[in-house]
Amino acid sequence: MERVYNFAAGPSMLPLEVLEEAQRDLINYKGSGMSVMEMSHRSKQYQAIFDETEATLRRIMNISDDYAVMFLQGGASLQFSMVPMNLMPKGATANYCETGIFAKKSAAEAKKWGNVITITSGKENNYTNIPELTDDIVTDDASYVHITQNNTIFGTTYHKTPDIKKCPLVADMSSVILGEEFDVNKYGIIYAGAQKNMGPAGMTLVIAKKELLGKAPEDTPSMLNYSLMADNGSMYNTPPCWAIYMAGLVYKWVEKSGGVKALENRNKEKSALLYDAIDSSKLFTAPATENCRSYMNVTFTLPTDELTAEFLDFVKDRNMTNLKGHRAVGGMRASIYNAMPIEGVNELVKAIKEFEAEK
Amino acid sequence: MERVYNFAAGPSMLPLEVLEEAQRDLINYKGSGMSVMEMSHRSKQYQAIFDETEATLRRIMNISDDYAVMFLQGGASLQFSMVPMNLMPKGATANYCETGIFAKKSAAEAKKWGNVITITSGKENNYTNIPELTDDIVTDDASYVHITQNNTIFGTTYHKTPDIKKCPLVADMSSVILGEEFDVNKYGIIYAGAQKNMGPAGMTLVIAKKELLGKAPEDTPSMLNYSLMADNGSMYNTPPCWAIYMAGLVYKWVEKSGGVKALENRNKEKSALLYDAIDSSKLFTAPATENCRSYMNVTFTLPTDELTAEFLDFVKDRNMTNLKGHRAVGGMRASIYNAMPIEGVNELVKAIKEFEAEK
Repeated sequence: MERVYNFAAGPSMLPLEVLEEAQRDLINYKGSGMSVMEMSHRSKQYQAIFDETEATLRRIMNISDDYAVMFLQGGASLQFSMVPMNLMPKGATANYCETGIFAKKSAAEAKKWGNVITITSGKENNYTNIPELTDDIVTDDASYVHITQNNTIFGTTYHKTPDIKKCPLVADMSSVILGEEFDVNKYGIIYAGAQKNMGPAGMTLVIAKKELLGKAPEDTPSMLNYSLMADNGSMYNTPPCWAIYMAGLVYKWVEKSGGVKALENRNKEKSALLYDAIDSSKLFTAPATENCRSYMNVTFTLPTDELTAEFLDFVKDRNMTNLKGHRAVGGMRASIYNAMPIEGVNELVKAIKEFEAEK
Repeated sequence: MERVYNFAAGPSMLPLEVLEEAQRDLINYKGSGMSVMEMSHRSKQYQAIFDETEATLRRIMNISDDYAVMFLQGGASLQFSMVPMNLMPKGATANYCETGIFAKKSAAEAKKWGNVITITSGKENNYTNIPELTDDIVTDDASYVHITQNNTIFGTTYHKTPDIKKCPLVADMSSVILGEEFDVNKYGIIYAGAQKNMGPAGMTLVIAKKELLGKAPEDTPSMLNYSLMADNGSMYNTPPCWAIYMAGLVYKWVEKSGGVKALENRNKEKSALLYDAIDSSKLFTAPATENCRSYMNVTFTLPTDELTAEFLDFVKDRNMTNLKGHRAVGGMRASIYNAMPIEGVNELVKAIKEFEAEK
């Protein structure tokens, strides 16, 4: 069987040439006599891989020395707790923007630590839009404002970084990092699970403005303390070495592909093909409001559950998989991260048109 | 270059046939059209891999249904915090056995949560021995007793599970799990980072007696709550899919190799070859007390730093690497986990003898 077009929300597709390189070097990495999976994280060999990974990421995201880069574990879900524990004293106040399920989860974890004020909510519209976030609605006592930059489940996104001056802006970028160009300097903390657009599951990237670090209480578990992680170069304990190596291969692939801006343009093109097909259809509908439609996760629905099931069956024979939408939205979701080739999107567009023609 | 004998303390060697299988299936796993690294953790394909991994582990360790098995993230170091947070109310008392550096670290994290009573310590003897742990020295208020089953840095181990009846016994088995046979029923919690004897870094195994779960306070971060992890089959969020898959391959290799008992016997044989060579030498010394010498991490020293440097140089040309000891012990450390073939140990024994003959 050939490789399948995998539209999963994450873990999801990786660039084929990245997988080929990983496969080639798996048993004996560049003549070292061992796999990357067998390397001591304290060895020069592995440190070189690690350093190159960080340096490549800093280049492609244009991350200045004012920011620490950490490769951690636990996914975005652990960041939901680490962010409040590291950015504010217990019981202090943070502002959250409720734009989807993961946004709600991040606020729920923060509530265990402090006072959460929800300053925007898309709940009334079933999260089909992104309410505007401006500095004047940020409360004066906010230690930070948290946003979910791209909502994987609802397929909505902040295409423009909110201009927040009152306090640091914290963003969960799990499903959009490297998919659009961002000015890191506008953020206090950026975090992202690797498994959507950066590599395999098991690594979490944290980019943190250095001046924000060092505020965690003394009784914070060491593994949840940003300062300790940053000061130890993400090696306070054994890091997820293989996942970091794989992310490094993806970062180099991004650079070789022309950088984040080139991929953003390609992602705009890919998603436009899909949204155009949906919008010009009389059968399919895209629920996300037009000005906040994600380039990464394209959600679309059919009028009935029967038609939805029929369509999902229809695409199965066409070498496409994981198109079923999240139960909160229903219908379909096509996650078309950087590694999804335009050919995959074309196949899906073709399927949408042919399915409608048959009806 | 051929494959090297890698004596690293972890990450360390993996069985060659495990690496070969991972390499073969890396791009297109068993005709699925995708890599395991690209599989949605919510897919049937991945769930099958996950279920088989857990089932194999339960077979080889003889884990009963009274125990939950979790595949988590964060390494043993995060368990240092999760154990107290899940097993006792804030401020309650736990007993710790100080048998090395990781034992001290585990107690230090517990101190942030509760009252730690150190009931045994090998400090006076620079941790060359394992002080006896018996039920009568356990304090009546102890929520649990924590041991480091095998001390990677000092090369010492509890060959016999302490018989604790007053409260649950918790063991960090990172460097000995699957290397010796243990009766799981004697433990409340067993945890282990994967990267020494089970797979690549990035996955942490937790085996927990179910009756101990459900006690974490409500404001515990979700990712640190055993119950939530167990109830969600380790998939509260995206698990470290690749590392779990790799561990599954290792578990099957253990089973194929005759099971844990067969590997324990092989490990006894391997370590005896080394200890015999050291004990019969007039130059080399093994600092660990004889009745608690580890089968996994063999520490040995030379009289001077110059000789140590010379020996480490001497072995380099013999296709052996990572033999330098931890700075706390000095000298050498040969970590000879399950995946280290006996040929590697023979090479090292040969080097020890030839080095001494040259002096």
